[in-house]
Amino acid sequence: MPQIKVGLIGFGTVGAGMVEVLINNRRLIADRIGAEIAVKKIADLDIASDRGVRIDPIVLTTDAMEIINDPEIDVVVELMGGCDQAMEYILMAMERGKHVVTANKALIAKHGRLLFDTAERYGVDIAFEASVAGGIPIIRALREGLAGNQIKAVLAILNGTSNYILTRMTEEGLSFNEALSIAKRSGYAEVDPTLDIDGSDAAHKLTIVVSLAFGLPCKYEDIYKEGIDTVCPEDIRFAGEFGYCLKLLAIARQVDGHIEARVHPAFVPLDHILANVNEAYNAVYVEGDFVGPTLFYGLGAGRRPTGSAVVSDLMDIARNQIKGITGRVPPLSFVRPPARELSLKPIDQLITGYYFRFSALDRPGVLSKISGFLGANNISIASVIQKGRAGHGSVPVVMLTHEAMERDVRKSLELLDKLDVVTERTVLFRVEKKTGN
Amino acid sequence: MPQIKVGLIGFGTVGAGMVEVLINNRRLIADRIGAEIAVKKIADLDIASDRGVRIDPIVLTTDAMEIINDPEIDVVVELMGGCDQAMEYILMAMERGKHVVTANKALIAKHGRLLFDTAERYGVDIAFEASVAGGIPIIRALREGLAGNQIKAVLAILNGTSNYILTRMTEEGLSFNEALSIAKRSGYAEVDPTLDIDGSDAAHKLTIVVSLAFGLPCKYEDIYKEGIDTVCPEDIRFAGEFGYCLKLLAIARQVDGHIEARVHPAFVPLDHILANVNEAYNAVYVEGDFVGPTLFYGLGAGRRPTGSAVVSDLMDIARNQIKGITGRVPPLSFVRPPARELSLKPIDQLITGYYFRFSALDRPGVLSKISGFLGANNISIASVIQKGRAGHGSVPVVMLTHEAMERDVRKSLELLDKLDVVTERTVLFRVEKKTGN
Repeated sequence: MPQIKVGLIGFGTVGAGMVEVLINNRRLIADRIGAEIAVKKIADLDIASDRGVRIDPIVLTTDAMEIINDPEIDVVVELMGGCDQAMEYILMAMERGKHVVTANKALIAKHGRLLFDTAERYGVDIAFEASVAGGIPIIRALREGLAGNQIKAVLAILNGTSNYILTRMTEEGLSFNEALSIAKRSGYAEVDPTLDIDGSDAAHKLTIVVSLAFGLPCKYEDIYKEGIDTVCPEDIRFAGEFGYCLKLLAIARQVDGHIEARVHPAFVPLDHILANVNEAYNAVYVEGDFVGPTLFYGLGAGRRPTGSAVVSDLMDIARNQIKGITGRVPPLSFVRPPARELSLKPIDQLITGYYFRFSALDRPGVLSKISGFLGANNISIASVIQKGRAGHGSVPVVMLTHEAMERDVRKSLELLDKLDVVTERTVLFRVEKKTGN
Repeated sequence: MPQIKVGLIGFGTVGAGMVEVLINNRRLIADRIGAEIAVKKIADLDIASDRGVRIDPIVLTTDAMEIINDPEIDVVVELMGGCDQAMEYILMAMERGKHVVTANKALIAKHGRLLFDTAERYGVDIAFEASVAGGIPIIRALREGLAGNQIKAVLAILNGTSNYILTRMTEEGLSFNEALSIAKRSGYAEVDPTLDIDGSDAAHKLTIVVSLAFGLPCKYEDIYKEGIDTVCPEDIRFAGEFGYCLKLLAIARQVDGHIEARVHPAFVPLDHILANVNEAYNAVYVEGDFVGPTLFYGLGAGRRPTGSAVVSDLMDIARNQIKGITGRVPPLSFVRPPARELSLKPIDQLITGYYFRFSALDRPGVLSKISGFLGANNISIASVIQKGRAGHGSVPVVMLTHEAMERDVRKSLELLDKLDVVTERTVLFRVEKKTGN
């Protein structure tokens, strides 16, 4: 039976998961692909800690170059994370004719183009299923399963930490900080959770999704992002009263030859299938012109699900190697650039519904003043909740708007916040339409 | 640009959908695969009716053999349905070195083995993504995306007609017949809906899923099935009171080296992601040993979604053809039979929770008589609802049991139904455990 020899750089959580899949399901994998996937070397600065997997210590090394320079190794799996060093290793591996599997979303998001061009130049495969939504095979779905479709929209929950925190806030009425503490204690948030809660992680993944869905080489820096640290339990409650929940969404949508690509907390209608994606789960809702609405759901992080995704890529490469081919499916699923010229739409041109929470003095005529002001700026109100006196002299006035342009909204709020009847900065969230999916 | 020439046999709903995808997204498809997919001939007995797609009438023929015998045609797409004639065409096409794409679930379920062996013998590909769950790329997910996993369980809603009817019954409290009429009027049920509502259609698809998930050549006839025609709105209401909804589920589960494979209406916990799959949508919930729980959701039928699936198969075959290979992924994703010996478990050995609705005389001591009887047969009660007098002298007594063996359940009910306090045949549904998915 042929053997595919793998070198692993980075023996952390996901690396250990990959090794565990390969050990536990060794026979199953061989039955499926007709080849054995053998881990020949593992490089990590720490080769002493026990990762809970049975490996021969002889495969361990602190020197990644031993893998890069080993002519027997067919595939290099990069799971060290970070950008510069990882990039260097991957490029060297490809120059030496090795295929590459990586889970490094930041790297693919920032330097995908160079990586894909290099892979093509050296005739090797590069696979990155684990970089988006962990164990969910969403990259295969976009590249192959739905390949005959023009993608109209992608709405995704791509950050498990944020979704876990928002679930706690929704179900237990906790503040952001309280929910974050629980997430840390339960292992759903890292010690420094910045990239998860500020939307960066989801934006990295969305960059990859946009490129795959639309064939648009999209820059990470061009994706608009907001995190969840400004979400209050109050807004989640009001969302519920309007028939919505609050989720950190990564959204990509094709509108008249432009692509919207944005990450922010958003109101999701309670009858939308994404509204039921809770805890640390991820889900990607994809709408194609022929297939219609689809959803791909699962665990977006963690040793075992991400290990599963890495192994699926290894099996794919093994299947290619057995047939003696590479480049069967191009990394972004486009053999040539797509015919349609698409460009990223700046956020101030976004047209969507909005939720506003004004803190206003509890005086007669305030609502009329605010709504008159909005109307004059092309923002029309769809529904309002005005509750009784909060006791501080100011009360929340919350409303949903019909579709409006972000530019008009921002201008209005800036001016409205200067009115003397408005006592605090107005809270804004974008609202996904109820479509009866 | 290379051209892949396709012959289509069967120009019905799905055939027209496929042609529409290929026309509307011609450029996109060419951009993605670097080849053109051209429909060279279409065979159907009816070549007069307008299918709403722009095709040159010259491609139409009433003689499928014109396609089979055309040496220029690379791929035969079989969308005529039925078994004997379709089988004959497919076998002839493969003998002539043509790849085959089909959406024919009954054919794959009943004769998959012969079809796959023949494809291997003649070195051609056979693809059937459209045969299960319409536009949802579930076959690719099982064969490739989750390929490194031992599949523990598949719970699926695979029949859109049944799901639509159950949704109407649940939301509007309709009877089965009322809901069926609406389904027919809305185009969600065929004139003769037998195969959809008696579970046969779902069982065909489950046969394919079991083979893919476990590598177990599974016979359609061995799959236990019940339809939804016995479901009463009363049982749906009681389900709600217990915290469940009622769905027609196709279930495959690996338990101690045995595979359970069954199709029947089942109680699904309301907090399970499948409980939110309504209307005509399909969904496949797959649990792998590493990836954990996943869900694949979308439209399981219809011209456009199924057309999308057929085209994804054509693109796959085109990608193989460009690389000059076939058989890259074996039809069932196993190059050799799986190591583990698995066998199908007969339904009477099933162990699960149950729902019973007894029609009992409204007399003191009846509940104690029934429960005592069940206890003596190893069936222990988890919860009971006993409502007041229904006015006919008999009242419903409904209960959920802890896990029990089907054999014991059937034996008990048979005897219980003979008791003089039980006035009608007891209604039984199987219950999926609340696991907090």
